Amino acid sequence: MTTTRVAILGASGYTGAELVRLLSRHPNMEIAALTADRKAGQSMADVFPHLAILDLPPLTAIDEVDWNGVDAVFCALPHATTQKVIAGLPKRLKIVDLSADFRLEDPAAYEKWYGHAHAERELQKEVVYGLPEFYREKVKSARIVANTGCYVAAAIIPLIPVLEAGLADPDWIIIDAKSGVSGAGRAAKEANLFTEVSEGFHAYSVAGHRHMGEIDQELSKAAGRPVTASFTPHLLPQNRGILATTYLKGEAQAIHARLAERFAGEPFVHVLPFGRTPATRHVRGSNHCLIGVVADRQPGRTILISVLDNLVKGASGQAIQNMNLMLGLPETAGLEQLALFP
Amino acid sequence: MTTTRVAILGASGYTGAELVRLLSRHPNMEIAALTADRKAGQSMADVFPHLAILDLPPLTAIDEVDWNGVDAVFCALPHATTQKVIAGLPKRLKIVDLSADFRLEDPAAYEKWYGHAHAERELQKEVVYGLPEFYREKVKSARIVANTGCYVAAAIIPLIPVLEAGLADPDWIIIDAKSGVSGAGRAAKEANLFTEVSEGFHAYSVAGHRHMGEIDQELSKAAGRPVTASFTPHLLPQNRGILATTYLKGEAQAIHARLAERFAGEPFVHVLPFGRTPATRHVRGSNHCLIGVVADRQPGRTILISVLDNLVKGASGQAIQNMNLMLGLPETAGLEQLALFP
Amino acid sequence: MTTTRVAILGASGYTGAELVRLLSRHPNMEIAALTADRKAGQSMADVFPHLAILDLPPLTAIDEVDWNGVDAVFCALPHATTQKVIAGLPKRLKIVDLSADFRLEDPAAYEKWYGHAHAERELQKEVVYGLPEFYREKVKSARIVANTGCYVAAAIIPLIPVLEAGLADPDWIIIDAKSGVSGAGRAAKEANLFTEVSEGFHAYSVAGHRHMGEIDQELSKAAGRPVTASFTPHLLPQNRGILATTYLKGEAQAIHARLAERFAGEPFVHVLPFGRTPATRHVRGSNHCLIGVVADRQPGRTILISVLDNLVKGASGQAIQNMNLMLGLPETAGLEQLALFP
Amino acid sequence: MTTTRVAILGASGYTGAELVRLLSRHPNMEIAALTADRKAGQSMADVFPHLAILDLPPLTAIDEVDWNGVDAVFCALPHATTQKVIAGLPKRLKIVDLSADFRLEDPAAYEKWYGHAHAERELQKEVVYGLPEFYREKVKSARIVANTGCYVAAAIIPLIPVLEAGLADPDWIIIDAKSGVSGAGRAAKEANLFTEVSEGFHAYSVAGHRHMGEIDQELSKAAGRPVTASFTPHLLPQNRGILATTYLKGEAQAIHARLAERFAGEPFVHVLPFGRTPATRHVRGSNHCLIGVVADRQPGRTILISVLDNLVKGASGQAIQNMNLMLGLPETAGLEQLALFP
Repeated sequence: MTTTRVAILGASGYTGAELVRLLSRHPNMEIAALTADRKAGQSMADVFPHLAILDLPPLTAIDEVDWNGVDAVFCALPHATTQKVIAGLPKRLKIVDLSADFRLEDPAAYEKWYGHAHAERELQKEVVYGLPEFYREKVKSARIVANTGCYVAAAIIPLIPVLEAGLADPDWIIIDAKSGVSGAGRAAKEANLFTEVSEGFHAYSVAGHRHMGEIDQELSKAAGRPVTASFTPHLLPQNRGILATTYLKGEAQAIHARLAERFAGEPFVHVLPFGRTPATRHVRGSNHCLIGVVADRQPGRTILISVLDNLVKGASGQAIQNMNLMLGLPETAGLEQLALFP
Repeated sequence: MTTTRVAILGASGYTGAELVRLLSRHPNMEIAALTADRKAGQSMADVFPHLAILDLPPLTAIDEVDWNGVDAVFCALPHATTQKVIAGLPKRLKIVDLSADFRLEDPAAYEKWYGHAHAERELQKEVVYGLPEFYREKVKSARIVANTGCYVAAAIIPLIPVLEAGLADPDWIIIDAKSGVSGAGRAAKEANLFTEVSEGFHAYSVAGHRHMGEIDQELSKAAGRPVTASFTPHLLPQNRGILATTYLKGEAQAIHARLAERFAGEPFVHVLPFGRTPATRHVRGSNHCLIGVVADRQPGRTILISVLDNLVKGASGQAIQNMNLMLGLPETAGLEQLALFP
Repeated sequence: MTTTRVAILGASGYTGAELVRLLSRHPNMEIAALTADRKAGQSMADVFPHLAILDLPPLTAIDEVDWNGVDAVFCALPHATTQKVIAGLPKRLKIVDLSADFRLEDPAAYEKWYGHAHAERELQKEVVYGLPEFYREKVKSARIVANTGCYVAAAIIPLIPVLEAGLADPDWIIIDAKSGVSGAGRAAKEANLFTEVSEGFHAYSVAGHRHMGEIDQELSKAAGRPVTASFTPHLLPQNRGILATTYLKGEAQAIHARLAERFAGEPFVHVLPFGRTPATRHVRGSNHCLIGVVADRQPGRTILISVLDNLVKGASGQAIQNMNLMLGLPETAGLEQLALFP
Repeated sequence: MTTTRVAILGASGYTGAELVRLLSRHPNMEIAALTADRKAGQSMADVFPHLAILDLPPLTAIDEVDWNGVDAVFCALPHATTQKVIAGLPKRLKIVDLSADFRLEDPAAYEKWYGHAHAERELQKEVVYGLPEFYREKVKSARIVANTGCYVAAAIIPLIPVLEAGLADPDWIIIDAKSGVSGAGRAAKEANLFTEVSEGFHAYSVAGHRHMGEIDQELSKAAGRPVTASFTPHLLPQNRGILATTYLKGEAQAIHARLAERFAGEPFVHVLPFGRTPATRHVRGSNHCLIGVVADRQPGRTILISVLDNLVKGASGQAIQNMNLMLGLPETAGLEQLALFP
């Protein structure tokens, strides 16, 4: 089997570092180029000392990349700047985009949630929304895949099969989500200082978080009609992990049976025995998503709890899973790493 | 003004230590006796070195206390053992009980949630449920007050006025609550080890937490009809703080106006400007409860967020607030301490 | 007793907030003015929501302060900018400076450690180095006091009496110090993000930390000859607290006896029983410094362990203690707050 | 290459779980048996949900193991109980013991540090002390290897080459060590609760920690004369990682050159460029040990900083490294995992 030479654009952020961590042990890919805008010229060891033992290409500016030596691209650039960059890449490259730039299929929705018109509406039409568990076949033949957002993946993986089967009221979906701090990236912001985050907890972007557009899009497809879920994100004093507690009007046993059947063959999605619930620490550093289903004491209501690592199944691991599909590789290649606990 | 001599029963737990911290700076109370079952014979300095600079009575067994030197009692004993102890105390003592033993007014409810019959059903009739913001007058003349539970206080303080005013649908209440680890007490349990809690997050007792009985009782009184809320507790990797995110069917502006008016004169409950939300770190170590109200993007739905320190407003601070009322003292005496941040 | 009206310059940093927390409960001082350079125009509630329940003056620029309404100043500005500001204040004001700008009595030492000439060498002569336990009398009559640095206070409080008494070899002092993150202030730096600090530990500025100049100055005075200690600072994944582990050549019992006697009457310095050692959590939020003395298994060597809260005894609490002395107030006024644990 | 069937004795502790995590991805070993005393009868998924996705043998008592199906043993039992267990195992088994029971070659030293006579003095003579970087050849032909302790490994890896080369004064070694909480194991102890550990820091077993006997043994061998280092362990509020700050009398450049040369070919020990220092987070979850060397400002003194993950290079990873050697496998097999950050 030949080795695919990959470039990581935006390697100086946490999702970039996570791609390096996973790809450096991938049996069929090798890292051919690493880019970082402001940190071009530095080595990855300077920027991420935990990766210093690897032999890696230097960080460069994007326009310094020799595309002849690259077969595929992971794009881990900030939202909004990504559109132009991807539009400018050679057309023969396979691309997984970890930003939000191509996730919303409707340009009007993009404009609503991001506050400006989409700059590459033609390119958008070509992009496949890339959650492997639901879009596997489309991903296999895609040239560009938009990787699902971290909160969105945690929320919709258990919800899509429930709504598709009509097992819950689409007008009665409340998603209370909690994320570790790494989801906010590595930018130096006062709000993300250790002193501002540790020993405390708060909600943010209440009723206004941008991931809602993406949740709406996918839940509406699943329900076959417009869905507007309530969604509240909170910031946990921990590095990694998202846990979504979702409240539904629907029968818990039926929901559990449906999810257990739907995900029985999935390598990375696991439904716990009825009544058991997962913790974020069970997936720290792994590409797994765990789902628990509990009957609420209110008859006819169900509580779903889903967890994943926002940097892995919620970003870089999922991206590699998508790329594996695009390249015809085993879907789990390079993603066998187990959770690190404690 | 005379000084009230108080005994703290169960001083070797976290709520006991917190009572000592606050009472040792209270202008009208002095600590006359401290008891601890297994740690009798030790000094408070041995058990809690952060209090070593205080001059405190030794830890003794309960039956060694000279009740002639005691005017009032804070009972911070474990659930279930408290009933007998309080029944055996001299009748002239003012008592605030921090356990759950006398919180449920209906003995049948007690039996349902705690799995055994209440041992002191006559005494129960005499007890006043002690959340000062709602039962102030009853507390003033009570001999025994049952201190509201920590999760319960965070949940019901904003909900009672809303339900009393009929501003939200009583059949549509979802309380997603998150607590710091100190709520679990100081018992040596594997589940509460640093290694098991840090860098992770999970729900527990989903659809089965005992505080539900107490929530039902108070919300039903407020609504004037039986209320069964959905309630899910989660464990935060932090020491102190409860945050409850509550989803309601009701108009946010009306709810905000009602809460702002209702709590305008309260020294310890503060309603933030409309659309702003609080963090647990804003009340760390203080007796304050902060409430935020946000309009959900689903028209007609409201998101309430309330925070308090589970060891202070959720336990020991609230207990002192109740005792201040019982003794005719200023309600805020000894409770002026501000939050510690960072 | 009249109330002293104080201004806090630099109120938007952590030491500024800590001054507000403590002074708002001080019986003899009131906060008359608060300044913050970049955040002028905002309220303290915006900048520090945990202080929102207080009725405070707005944040202004320094040149907007009406000095007629101010009797005393706490200057919590960044290093290097402070010199000019203090030189420009009315001469009748009592000033405690929390920066490093006036701590080094020798301008040459200042230039060596800070990389530029001192701008106010005449003013420097007037300044008293303000560690109350050692300079109490000088502080009482001082107009300007330079508050001891946080690492320095933790290191030298136990060392000065030992060196003064000749109980340890001045050429054999190794100070291994560990600090919580709040010592780095509130500036938005990548290195202080939650994700960069939590779940990890490292040394920094090894053999080059600026506090060394101050340690040299004070230990040399104590020993009566030049002293150059080894000093290594480390960053702890916690908000508050400094612990210094100091290795000495000297007899532990004699050192313990000396320290116990020397600090017997001190309200804020406590020597533990021989062989016992303190934890930073025992002083979280309080103005106390705890000292433990242990005999090393190497005969003739002693291990000293000292702890304090870097924001209180290491900064704002110590500053109030100094100001109390300058104003003729009881030294402990406003500083009775106990440690918050857990 | 044939697959070695291994048993893990004591699989319900953290080092046991870490062995499972690493061995389940080892190309040449398979887990044939798992034992756990009190948790016999449970599944590994019950005890460690993060490993639930693996297909593992059930936890049994030791005497239920079918030794015919086992080729090699990792013994992760508590100290003191291990001696008898290992003495009772079939003699054909290769064994790596992670406990302290066979680390001290001198039975008198064992008795001094552990307070009771060694029960298997004959067996002790057969055991090889197993730090691969220094005892590689002996380990290859050993039947039983005593895995180096976590603190010890962090301390002695940089020190042995320095002492062997006579580059530092053996009477002037101060090791200030800091460890994450997982080093204390999973036993339910009050001292290791989240509430007792987080947001604080302290030293423990000052001048009395049992690992000192092992440090003495190895440093004395290296120096060719008795060495008694000062050693102080501290508890960090984090899960994983040991950092040792070691103060030496010796020339830093020479020490750095010696270490860089000595470890140049080692796969798991890395010497940073002169003056750079490592953090525990750079080795979280990996089998690497990083070493930094800095010249102290005191001429002729050197500060060494070494880090490793106490559960990997300090325990389970090192054990696999030893077993790889004993079985003639590549030394790095199963140990390629990179550090997890953030």
